[in-house]
Amino acid sequence: MSDSATAQERYLTAAIAAARKGRSEGGIPIGAALVSANGEILATGYNKRVQLGSAIRHGETDALENAGRLSAAVYAGSTMATTLSPCDMCTGAILLYKIPRVIVGENRTFYGGEDLLRSRGVEVVVADDDECVQIMTEFIAAEPELWNEDIGEPSTSGGPPRRAAKE
Amino acid sequence: MSDSATAQERYLTAAIAAARKGRSEGGIPIGAALVSANGEILATGYNKRVQLGSAIRHGETDALENAGRLSAAVYAGSTMATTLSPCDMCTGAILLYKIPRVIVGENRTFYGGEDLLRSRGVEVVVADDDECVQIMTEFIAAEPELWNEDIGEPSTSGGPPRRAAKE
Repeated sequence: MSDSATAQERYLTAAIAAARKGRSEGGIPIGAALVSANGEILATGYNKRVQLGSAIRHGETDALENAGRLSAAVYAGSTMATTLSPCDMCTGAILLYKIPRVIVGENRTFYGGEDLLRSRGVEVVVADDDECVQIMTEFIAAEPELWNEDIGEPSTSGGPPRRAAKE
Repeated sequence: MSDSATAQERYLTAAIAAARKGRSEGGIPIGAALVSANGEILATGYNKRVQLGSAIRHGETDALENAGRLSAAVYAGSTMATTLSPCDMCTGAILLYKIPRVIVGENRTFYGGEDLLRSRGVEVVVADDDECVQIMTEFIAAEPELWNEDIGEPSTSGGPPRRAAKE
């Protein structure tokens, strides 16, 4: 069962709001929302590389973390809305939890694991949303090094600030 | 360049110690170690589903988180040692950061994304370690529901304890 276009817009709007919140904190503006089968937004999340010094808190994984421990039955009816095409890690998280549908805000600035998702039976809806494109275009232009770090691409400068490991 | 068998054992021993620490805390006994090109253990990590109510802190992702923000150059020379065949999420995290080599303690109790890793050029070494098999066999027998939750499989009871989302 697919939601209406209006419902999909509502989910993406929540993801965009999370992305903008992240940017307002100086972070990478990628947000996500995990939505239940009945349209309840279970949690939102956004990239926290800068805010938490995190290598694993991307939009989608942060939404999953904020949603907490859920049963397979909840994931089985859920939708992940994300402002940007999911990277390999977030693609894998969606596959792990067998989330059946992903709404992608845009995939023009970055093309992630959509083909793998589809090959594993996940429905991928690409909204090609202008606001999502604009947010990422502005961010990548402003902070190309930070963006490269987030997707595991080589830096042209010295890379991220090195600090001691947490444990 | 591959490390000697002795070096690989040292990395896996660190991952096993992390797994056992997690079990001693009541958690799921899967551990990992991220190792630099010169054999330095950058960070260890272990599954924290129980301890932190976390949906994304698996052994490998926890090690990546504990290692903190690293440049692509560091990941490019690194090795991920893990007590168990990596799930889809951890497979994706390894691919995101282009970690070129994974040492898998065992893949008898769970077979994860090894084929995808190899198809993307990652070297996967399966140690088939008896201690790793024993740790997981005992855990799965003792807590099958918790294990199913961790790999996104349906529960035969009511699923995980439900709590409010963190945000």
